[in-house]
Amino acid sequence: MPPNVPEWSKTLGDGVAVRAYGKPSKHEANVIRRDVEWLTASRESSVSFTPLHELDGIITPNGLCFERHHSGIAELDPNDYRLMIHGLVDKPLMFTLQDLERFPRTNRIYFAECAANSGMEWRGAQMNACQFTHGMIHNVMYTGVPLRVLLEEAGVKTNAKWLLLEGADSAAMTRSLPLQKALDDCLIAFRMNGERLRPENGYPVRICVPGWEANMWVKWLRRIEVGDQPWHHREETSKYTDLLENGKARRFTYVMDAKSVITNPSPQAPLRHKKGFTVISGIAWSGRGKIARVDVSLDGGRNWRTARLDGPVLDKSMARFYAEFDWNGQELFLQSRAIDETGYVQPTKDELRKVRGVNSVYHNNGIQTWRVSPEGEVENVEIA
Amino acid sequence: MPPNVPEWSKTLGDGVAVRAYGKPSKHEANVIRRDVEWLTASRESSVSFTPLHELDGIITPNGLCFERHHSGIAELDPNDYRLMIHGLVDKPLMFTLQDLERFPRTNRIYFAECAANSGMEWRGAQMNACQFTHGMIHNVMYTGVPLRVLLEEAGVKTNAKWLLLEGADSAAMTRSLPLQKALDDCLIAFRMNGERLRPENGYPVRICVPGWEANMWVKWLRRIEVGDQPWHHREETSKYTDLLENGKARRFTYVMDAKSVITNPSPQAPLRHKKGFTVISGIAWSGRGKIARVDVSLDGGRNWRTARLDGPVLDKSMARFYAEFDWNGQELFLQSRAIDETGYVQPTKDELRKVRGVNSVYHNNGIQTWRVSPEGEVENVEIA
Repeated sequence: MPPNVPEWSKTLGDGVAVRAYGKPSKHEANVIRRDVEWLTASRESSVSFTPLHELDGIITPNGLCFERHHSGIAELDPNDYRLMIHGLVDKPLMFTLQDLERFPRTNRIYFAECAANSGMEWRGAQMNACQFTHGMIHNVMYTGVPLRVLLEEAGVKTNAKWLLLEGADSAAMTRSLPLQKALDDCLIAFRMNGERLRPENGYPVRICVPGWEANMWVKWLRRIEVGDQPWHHREETSKYTDLLENGKARRFTYVMDAKSVITNPSPQAPLRHKKGFTVISGIAWSGRGKIARVDVSLDGGRNWRTARLDGPVLDKSMARFYAEFDWNGQELFLQSRAIDETGYVQPTKDELRKVRGVNSVYHNNGIQTWRVSPEGEVENVEIA
Repeated sequence: MPPNVPEWSKTLGDGVAVRAYGKPSKHEANVIRRDVEWLTASRESSVSFTPLHELDGIITPNGLCFERHHSGIAELDPNDYRLMIHGLVDKPLMFTLQDLERFPRTNRIYFAECAANSGMEWRGAQMNACQFTHGMIHNVMYTGVPLRVLLEEAGVKTNAKWLLLEGADSAAMTRSLPLQKALDDCLIAFRMNGERLRPENGYPVRICVPGWEANMWVKWLRRIEVGDQPWHHREETSKYTDLLENGKARRFTYVMDAKSVITNPSPQAPLRHKKGFTVISGIAWSGRGKIARVDVSLDGGRNWRTARLDGPVLDKSMARFYAEFDWNGQELFLQSRAIDETGYVQPTKDELRKVRGVNSVYHNNGIQTWRVSPEGEVENVEIA
């Protein structure tokens, strides 16, 4: 005999007309980007974090992609949008959005991770949320024109070696990009997950710099200047450099090394059962190519098991991993460790600190530890 | 010298706090699902169409996935959600949503296409919009538990051959599913593109029946009964069967055969330039596996060129194709033709009509023709 028939099986629901552009269920109101009030100087120069613990698979929905602005969200009119390419070129060019769409385009799923993701953890802040320790990352399908194609159209002079990328926000975000990377795999992107870029992600055009720190993925891209040396602007001198113990700073450290994190369980997503079959879920990525393997430890790194990669494993994209085990109900120290196709192994935080000290807030790809209590509660801890 | 500095480069924008769950730009207000007032009986029993001409790549954003309801959108409370498996099983089972998440899960990108997609075209309605001729399809990454795993947990009896799938909407949508397909690749899905299913797409749980007509992808899935023969319910007798010329109906025609359509240009997305380099973009899919090739014709099927597949080409998923050419500014008759990995070639509409007549509204996978005028306007036509 069937169970009781619930109310929603007895009444007509809303029709389609009220949902021209759909929204999540009202029961999912807690699945949102969150910010940390004290973290940045002002509301306009701020950051919001992707709720990784509320997601699965490898696609980040556009409404949940983390944000990092340097002067708030520039609100462009696409009809007045222009992209200029000038400097050491045979023929300076200016493109409208429609112009860009007349070039051959391509679709790629890439992660974009802020260089400061996990940055508070250098000094052991132990932010008690996966969303805040690792949520400055998203992974979407971008559609755009290879930058190489546009540079070929302009004709790059033989002494050219660097590009300046400039955003149309009032911070005029600028970064220097080596020409070699521009010719390799950068995209002038105008779509994410099929639809137009969102305003907070650079509408109508941003650059994708696959595998490199997201600060270089200049949003609201307005100008590309071709030159023969880097520009040494603020975001590659005072910021986005790695200050070492000896007071010197590593510069132009663009690549995001292999990294992973267990998203479930995590502090915002405790275990709700007391023991038995348990699914661990997490994400791994590498700026140097594909993820080759992910290991998971239940005991703080003493013993490791190979996790199951599930779903597409793509170049410079998030991969999803799972590890299933029978939980005996005792305390756990969960860790994950990514290995990429170059053979690089994600280090511990202490291994990183030995080389780089604790002055930096950038490029922390150390192994994350979650302590799970017998009650299933999860907290951010470090293992000595 | 740089061009004039626009207003948005001079003023601070909004910060992150106002965008906890993001929305498209106000300039994209026309990128919405649309319905056709006369098409279905009531607002609750209706359909909305994906704006394919406004998308690129292969991911459909959740807010734009087409809808087809039989009694409106059931609004379930996930805390009270239950899935029952009973009938010819050793052990009838009842699952909460949390129970389902304790099984090993998987992530797959699949298309879901309504059997009635392009249905108006059997008799040559020539709906003048790609959104209405082909927009009853979406393509997202689903996360869920293989149905096989749950059936193994219940223990299917040896005489079992069919399943009944029942939705929790007030239409109590039911379909019979062969056990063999259930054990092959069906998913009990609770996420799309990473986040929870949307209410209009079955929140919190629907079944994915990869490659088969979307009517079988029962939303708000409530009950699975295991039996030894099909149930012959309304949606597999009066509806979703293919009425032939001789008055007999083909039944249980589940698989969606290979199909494709050019999304740009199309009637809602005319060419805005008068001649020169031109990008044709479109989608192709097959319920029998991967897309092997797509051909494009500029002259109504007399001459064909091989299109460029771009982005992941996956099993039972949309693939994106492009064809670039130099337009001489004259009239075009654009067609695309999908070939899948089984060697099946998408037929013309007339080839279909010769076999199946024009009584049906289902399973029309015929080749679509768009006439492009010298002014760049596009209309839906048929070539004799």
